[in-house]
Amino acid sequence: MEDLKTTDQSRVRRLLKNASYDRQTAYDLLDRQPMCSVGYVIDGRPYVTPTLQWRSGDRVIWHGSSASRALRAGSGADVCLTVSVLDGFVMARSGYNHSVNARSLVLFGRAGIVPEAEKATELDAFVDRLWPGRSAILRPTTAQELKATTLLSMQIDEGSLKIRTGPPCDEPEDYDLPIWAGVIPLRTAVDPAVADPVNREGVDMPDHIRDFAWPDNRLGR
Amino acid sequence: MEDLKTTDQSRVRRLLKNASYDRQTAYDLLDRQPMCSVGYVIDGRPYVTPTLQWRSGDRVIWHGSSASRALRAGSGADVCLTVSVLDGFVMARSGYNHSVNARSLVLFGRAGIVPEAEKATELDAFVDRLWPGRSAILRPTTAQELKATTLLSMQIDEGSLKIRTGPPCDEPEDYDLPIWAGVIPLRTAVDPAVADPVNREGVDMPDHIRDFAWPDNRLGR
Repeated sequence: MEDLKTTDQSRVRRLLKNASYDRQTAYDLLDRQPMCSVGYVIDGRPYVTPTLQWRSGDRVIWHGSSASRALRAGSGADVCLTVSVLDGFVMARSGYNHSVNARSLVLFGRAGIVPEAEKATELDAFVDRLWPGRSAILRPTTAQELKATTLLSMQIDEGSLKIRTGPPCDEPEDYDLPIWAGVIPLRTAVDPAVADPVNREGVDMPDHIRDFAWPDNRLGR
Repeated sequence: MEDLKTTDQSRVRRLLKNASYDRQTAYDLLDRQPMCSVGYVIDGRPYVTPTLQWRSGDRVIWHGSSASRALRAGSGADVCLTVSVLDGFVMARSGYNHSVNARSLVLFGRAGIVPEAEKATELDAFVDRLWPGRSAILRPTTAQELKATTLLSMQIDEGSLKIRTGPPCDEPEDYDLPIWAGVIPLRTAVDPAVADPVNREGVDMPDHIRDFAWPDNRLGR
């Protein structure tokens, strides 16, 4: 697979050792963290909207009801979509070298509206990737519901990753100091599912709920 | 305390029942989630940078090495800073009513550079809020390190919150369907700290590391 493209706007300028442009790594991160932040410009000002994203091949798709204001505004559909995961706090021997172990992806591109005919398939794919088989047991989506759903997409083309792992990087002379240094690991935990109190009697929790694992843990790191 | 201000750009337009402009709630969210995404505009295009933020009174502060490009570019220092926490997946009886329980804050404002004389205090406050007493045991920050650190800040003034909690909201007729509905709760888990393998012998893990709790869990929800 080809690397992500870079330009002056997307090239990482700091901490180059943590930079990556590897497409598979970008795909993995998109597949493991559904929360994203999408930035766009309206009337020359920045807007960032937290929303859910999922990958469909070489595209990323998101719920775009807010971003659609940018499209309608005619100010262009340039977007910057970021996904990030905080894996831990890096506790160094100086304040300056404290850091975080984290993975983040920043993608640049132009948003397009997902055509009406593709929306149902993409939405089902999103549900079924996280909860295999769920879309088939749900009440089917109505034409009106589909129409009320705005999905935006963008090609995964230009962008960059920053990935930091491992222990602190202190100044050489600081390693002699009697200061505890190390990493505090963080992860997303899934607690037992809570049934809607008004579920119909006798409706069992399906396996895809009982067995749900945060995608990052399921797919391995 | 006064509510956050709203304008046409910051008013929530969808799912109004989940909207809030409560300043204390905004402060709480900033205090509980250090990861943020900061959006800005360079040459008319959107940039979003994942970084760490912390609150200092009625200001939010973040590491701004990337955003400083926007300042230098002279394109203005309008920023949009968002913080979000994913609390759970909301599994409804139709795909359309699937949702997430989440808390998000979107703040709009103009970024300013934190003056040289205030940087050390703000950085220590960030460390000590998460790890009480840590800044005092670290190797002191040098003048050169401080100079190399760009902190940006903005007044917490204009913005909005979206907060969704609770079970699914299905269409009235869908509650009769024999479909399991409910919530899959998510949270940030802290795993036991991992000492740097090159820590000096006999250096014990301090209480502020051993007792570290994710701020959201520590402060209650």
